[in-house]
Amino acid sequence: MSHKFKPTSKHKFSFGLWTVGNPGGDPFGQPVRKKLTPVELVHLLAEVGAWGVNLHDNDLIPINATSSERQQIIDEFKNALDETGIVVPMATTNLFSDPVFKDGAFTSNDSKVRAYALQKTMNAIDLGIELGASMYVFWGGREGVDTDASKESIQSLKRFREALNYLCEYIKDQDYDLKFALEAKPNEPRADIFLPTTGAMLGFIETLDYPEMVGVNPEVAHEHMAGLNFVHAVAQALDAGKLFHIDLNDQAFGRYDQDLRFGSVNIKSAFFLVKLLEDNNYDGCRHFDAHAYRTEDYEGVKDFARGCMRTYLILKEKVDRWNNDSEIQSLLSEINADDGTMDQYLGKYESNKAAALKTQNFDRKSLGERGYGYERLDQLTMELLMGIR
Amino acid sequence: MSHKFKPTSKHKFSFGLWTVGNPGGDPFGQPVRKKLTPVELVHLLAEVGAWGVNLHDNDLIPINATSSERQQIIDEFKNALDETGIVVPMATTNLFSDPVFKDGAFTSNDSKVRAYALQKTMNAIDLGIELGASMYVFWGGREGVDTDASKESIQSLKRFREALNYLCEYIKDQDYDLKFALEAKPNEPRADIFLPTTGAMLGFIETLDYPEMVGVNPEVAHEHMAGLNFVHAVAQALDAGKLFHIDLNDQAFGRYDQDLRFGSVNIKSAFFLVKLLEDNNYDGCRHFDAHAYRTEDYEGVKDFARGCMRTYLILKEKVDRWNNDSEIQSLLSEINADDGTMDQYLGKYESNKAAALKTQNFDRKSLGERGYGYERLDQLTMELLMGIR
Amino acid sequence: MSHKFKPTSKHKFSFGLWTVGNPGGDPFGQPVRKKLTPVELVHLLAEVGAWGVNLHDNDLIPINATSSERQQIIDEFKNALDETGIVVPMATTNLFSDPVFKDGAFTSNDSKVRAYALQKTMNAIDLGIELGASMYVFWGGREGVDTDASKESIQSLKRFREALNYLCEYIKDQDYDLKFALEAKPNEPRADIFLPTTGAMLGFIETLDYPEMVGVNPEVAHEHMAGLNFVHAVAQALDAGKLFHIDLNDQAFGRYDQDLRFGSVNIKSAFFLVKLLEDNNYDGCRHFDAHAYRTEDYEGVKDFARGCMRTYLILKEKVDRWNNDSEIQSLLSEINADDGTMDQYLGKYESNKAAALKTQNFDRKSLGERGYGYERLDQLTMELLMGIR
Amino acid sequence: MSHKFKPTSKHKFSFGLWTVGNPGGDPFGQPVRKKLTPVELVHLLAEVGAWGVNLHDNDLIPINATSSERQQIIDEFKNALDETGIVVPMATTNLFSDPVFKDGAFTSNDSKVRAYALQKTMNAIDLGIELGASMYVFWGGREGVDTDASKESIQSLKRFREALNYLCEYIKDQDYDLKFALEAKPNEPRADIFLPTTGAMLGFIETLDYPEMVGVNPEVAHEHMAGLNFVHAVAQALDAGKLFHIDLNDQAFGRYDQDLRFGSVNIKSAFFLVKLLEDNNYDGCRHFDAHAYRTEDYEGVKDFARGCMRTYLILKEKVDRWNNDSEIQSLLSEINADDGTMDQYLGKYESNKAAALKTQNFDRKSLGERGYGYERLDQLTMELLMGIR
Repeated sequence: MSHKFKPTSKHKFSFGLWTVGNPGGDPFGQPVRKKLTPVELVHLLAEVGAWGVNLHDNDLIPINATSSERQQIIDEFKNALDETGIVVPMATTNLFSDPVFKDGAFTSNDSKVRAYALQKTMNAIDLGIELGASMYVFWGGREGVDTDASKESIQSLKRFREALNYLCEYIKDQDYDLKFALEAKPNEPRADIFLPTTGAMLGFIETLDYPEMVGVNPEVAHEHMAGLNFVHAVAQALDAGKLFHIDLNDQAFGRYDQDLRFGSVNIKSAFFLVKLLEDNNYDGCRHFDAHAYRTEDYEGVKDFARGCMRTYLILKEKVDRWNNDSEIQSLLSEINADDGTMDQYLGKYESNKAAALKTQNFDRKSLGERGYGYERLDQLTMELLMGIR
Repeated sequence: MSHKFKPTSKHKFSFGLWTVGNPGGDPFGQPVRKKLTPVELVHLLAEVGAWGVNLHDNDLIPINATSSERQQIIDEFKNALDETGIVVPMATTNLFSDPVFKDGAFTSNDSKVRAYALQKTMNAIDLGIELGASMYVFWGGREGVDTDASKESIQSLKRFREALNYLCEYIKDQDYDLKFALEAKPNEPRADIFLPTTGAMLGFIETLDYPEMVGVNPEVAHEHMAGLNFVHAVAQALDAGKLFHIDLNDQAFGRYDQDLRFGSVNIKSAFFLVKLLEDNNYDGCRHFDAHAYRTEDYEGVKDFARGCMRTYLILKEKVDRWNNDSEIQSLLSEINADDGTMDQYLGKYESNKAAALKTQNFDRKSLGERGYGYERLDQLTMELLMGIR
Repeated sequence: MSHKFKPTSKHKFSFGLWTVGNPGGDPFGQPVRKKLTPVELVHLLAEVGAWGVNLHDNDLIPINATSSERQQIIDEFKNALDETGIVVPMATTNLFSDPVFKDGAFTSNDSKVRAYALQKTMNAIDLGIELGASMYVFWGGREGVDTDASKESIQSLKRFREALNYLCEYIKDQDYDLKFALEAKPNEPRADIFLPTTGAMLGFIETLDYPEMVGVNPEVAHEHMAGLNFVHAVAQALDAGKLFHIDLNDQAFGRYDQDLRFGSVNIKSAFFLVKLLEDNNYDGCRHFDAHAYRTEDYEGVKDFARGCMRTYLILKEKVDRWNNDSEIQSLLSEINADDGTMDQYLGKYESNKAAALKTQNFDRKSLGERGYGYERLDQLTMELLMGIR
Repeated sequence: MSHKFKPTSKHKFSFGLWTVGNPGGDPFGQPVRKKLTPVELVHLLAEVGAWGVNLHDNDLIPINATSSERQQIIDEFKNALDETGIVVPMATTNLFSDPVFKDGAFTSNDSKVRAYALQKTMNAIDLGIELGASMYVFWGGREGVDTDASKESIQSLKRFREALNYLCEYIKDQDYDLKFALEAKPNEPRADIFLPTTGAMLGFIETLDYPEMVGVNPEVAHEHMAGLNFVHAVAQALDAGKLFHIDLNDQAFGRYDQDLRFGSVNIKSAFFLVKLLEDNNYDGCRHFDAHAYRTEDYEGVKDFARGCMRTYLILKEKVDRWNNDSEIQSLLSEINADDGTMDQYLGKYESNKAAALKTQNFDRKSLGERGYGYERLDQLTMELLMGIR
């Protein structure tokens, strides 16, 4: 049984340095775990069976490092990657920790901060490329307001767009093989963050100069903070060809950013997420952007990391089971039965189709009386999830 | 004073028939007000000083009406419009009340329901055109799920897209002068409604065949249900040139769909909304999609309708005051001061600009120590809102 | 397998007439199922294997019924109970549907409404007694405000207390064997309902004249609407000896009142609830206050009802499994290991104990470094819930 | 005008050392303001016009301080109090920052931690007494779980009760003149904190050995995190004689713990809170448990602190205005008109009263048709709040 749920490189399970390396500080408490070095974290990830490691520039290189320190750190880190076989599929910029970004990075009211943010991102992109990343994530944690008095929101969107256009050009100019993935979050650490949902990001991307270079990085916790169905958000991204990366974790609706172990809050929504990804052959990273409870030491961190991957694989097996459960599938066939009589009206518009449709008589009453069988379908699903079928 | 806040036609204040005509039923209680006829409602709106009236097809024409009944109702309604000068700027389809739509309209799993929804919408569009509407709203209240087991979300998006494409073609085919505005809502009456936020709609529009025909109709209450900043959602729509219509009301974050009197929950967010609309010369309808408390009789309904408009005008006056408050404006100048030294790096990308920027030294520490003055700015704003300045 | 999860009378599974009899109307749509009679509903409940049926006065007796109509209805209903063996463990008053209660019942600003609410409740109590109920629930759906301008909240609490004291005296005066259970809900249908949580009810009970006669009826959906941990609310009620009744259903956090099938949203929280009830030998009713999706016909309603009970029993079996899982239990022993050295300081206060404790040296650092093993424990729990152990 | 809203000692405005001293760190960013010493903070509070300063033990005394260091710090602090006239009305224990408390303090699964928490609290109480505090607050930020697997909730309540009983005895034993005020919070930093609302605390207090020594310290932000009406929570506390202290700030519903400037999110709810406190002659501290935006330097911190007090006083003046507005008051009289005919039925129960009431005929229909005038009342209130009346 345990063999069955063992992660391998084909599953593309990755973790951020900041996830297993999270020392457990929070707004009300000090760190509880000593900081491990990036090299130690790579070895920890190898030990638990992960495939990739992602990073913010400053997870690896201190913001004050000299260029020789920088190079030494990179060399040691690459060594660790070589030793373990761990890869770096994605990189990103820390534009939120340093006080300089307290009013935002690309949308700060201070032009020097905006310029510095661009500089820092170009350098961080260079670092990502050096480490082999092919995906670059933008999470604008400070790109927002604590009071709407402080920024005109349209101007802020223009500033954010200008920065992304600039950086797309930089990628092209450098001939880097890199795509951008925008990560939305509704609030925290700002009262309101701009472009708060995956949907908003999808809308925004279409206003960029190079929309084809830019997709999204939806995160379970971030949509759940707004009480939104994450599966639907990811489906919209897939439908638009924009699911470039994904951040897996878990989170109760409407709470602060909990970043809990994947699947540890709501099995059902995690199941439908895995089903969506697997049924649609998503072939990007399965990145876990989560961290262990603050009660844990590093043994607990490993339990946490193993649990993320294991739960994904357990649910993947349940997806197969659901797709092959004869009672479920026969009920689905019944639900989706179509006698084809509507084909003459539906599909691509034609004038005569529409004219014919306008004269069609529908038996509204009997259509309204139909029972759809969703209670039974949902109960069968829950029982399958609980291992009863 | 009361003259100052009197609505006129230039303010384009409209109400739906279903708003002032809401009889006060709710999930736990029966209607408390007798139903008024559409003609009576038009006169009520004229009495309180509204400019426009909007409607779902079945607000005016019962779903079972014969065509002669239909014509008689339309004639009487047009008469009332003529008598009062009230216009019909927007129309929409009721695709949610009848049991036939219990599993959705354009996204129902039953192809007959999908076909019927198209037919009903074409007829309702014809009605809207006949009444002079130039904007057509889509609120897909039933386009969602109670369990994700019941629908594949990507397929549902495809179905929704197919219907909108069909209807855009219908408009073109009929040579109607009509635009579409999509209205998002996260949940209620379904557990999860597809495309739950204004941002999601903006993303979706770009996947349509005729995106230029389609914009959004954001609603305060619907974004607030997800705890999202409504001003930011509207700003994104304006920035994208997609604010085709707006539904004004109020609502506490995270609650059921309250549809309260405009500005009656949160003065501050209502103020920044009015400011956004007025500062950006939004010239569409100010539509109030709200209804009176269930404790009210029709005198209370009129108080409610008058209050919506009056609060908008009070806040509009406060916007002028804020824009001309010398202390606020001087603080804003200070906050946004820019010595121009970054102009060489920012703006449109150029290789040499980027190269120069990469070598620039930033005094990160002193930038991080800057005080932005937002507490003072926000307090001045609150005092202005409370009439103390 | 199916035998294993078959409900019997010892499980005390009850449903309200209003649950399986819910015709599927909602704020945006008409009823979708024809109304069944109370007698038909009793037979439906017998068919699915329920033990009890609960009711509001007007679920059985129309508000306008004459006393002879009343008696005939009761006789027929009792017949159905006799035929099926179904019992009536709980009754309650409908103080929310009729327009008369639009401003509240016991807390209305109209003294005639307050008096009528008392009268109606006394009559409904008489009915409950006649049907054999030993528990009487109060859900004050209208006892709240849409604006705080309308009621002084302290006065409202006084009015609510006065009514409950009055009705306790009525019970004593009539020598009825009946207890009261107060059911909290934070909002909907009012913007804010007084005493919004189970905790608030527990506090309020202690201000009554006969607190021993009054307990609580917590409901999953109602605490979840406020994003609160339901298990903790029920634990507080149990701890206080006040868990007189319970309303089982399910609900996503922060949503409108969904009243979904028990366990159909969150398996984990449903599991810990069943565990709490079973581990503490709760012997009251397991009442399902939920209803079928609006997409269902009466076959779906039966699926829904069967699913509620079946999921409870599946989770009950998982509780046994958890309590007997050697890895989980051994981990718990480790977590809760206590060498007894603190016994000298803890427990009941004594002066010398406290003095000794004040001089004790604690190794704060090593206590802070302890790993609690909760990630592992939680992962084991999730796997047990998914049927993997 | 500015004189009118000047704080004086009679207003009892207090701030925690941790509020104006908050250096602006958050889960995603480093501190932005240098730490001021307690002495500097006392002078800052004097400068802005505050009356009192509150503190956790470790806001003043580092957790590692020797007893001579401790005494020196206290002496310097008392000096600052003497120089400025600032008083210390309330004290509390930090049972959440140190890693030792990561699993809770009084409810930790580790008996040594529980014992240490008692010891630390006794010492902190001694400190509070030495500084003149007469109120002692308990906020159990870590008293909860990240997974319900980790603690039995009933056992946790027992542990928490045991600790409070112990500490009440300690107070009595030491003959301290001190009361306890329990502060509820639903979540953050734990996934779920026990006794999550003010109401839950009120219920819990009645299970203690000395309920008369213990009241509540409700906080705006904490109830708003659960989307609950704060005014109603405070009203329940006042009604029960348990409003021992209050934490004023502001917060959007359903968000992480924002701790914003008082009245800066929602003027209306802040107004009804001030109205409740003032109308009921609450004579305890008005404590601001909030902090400045992270964008601010110490000038901004002062703006923040001044704004808290000023907004309170502006709203207090509006309460007077509301209580004396003739249109509002006359509308209220109408709303609350009572012809006295129900007096024979209402009030204290009597058998013959109840019998008479049962035979009374109510005109349910006309009672249901009554218009309550709340839309008008609420609109008048909003206009008063906006300074239009």
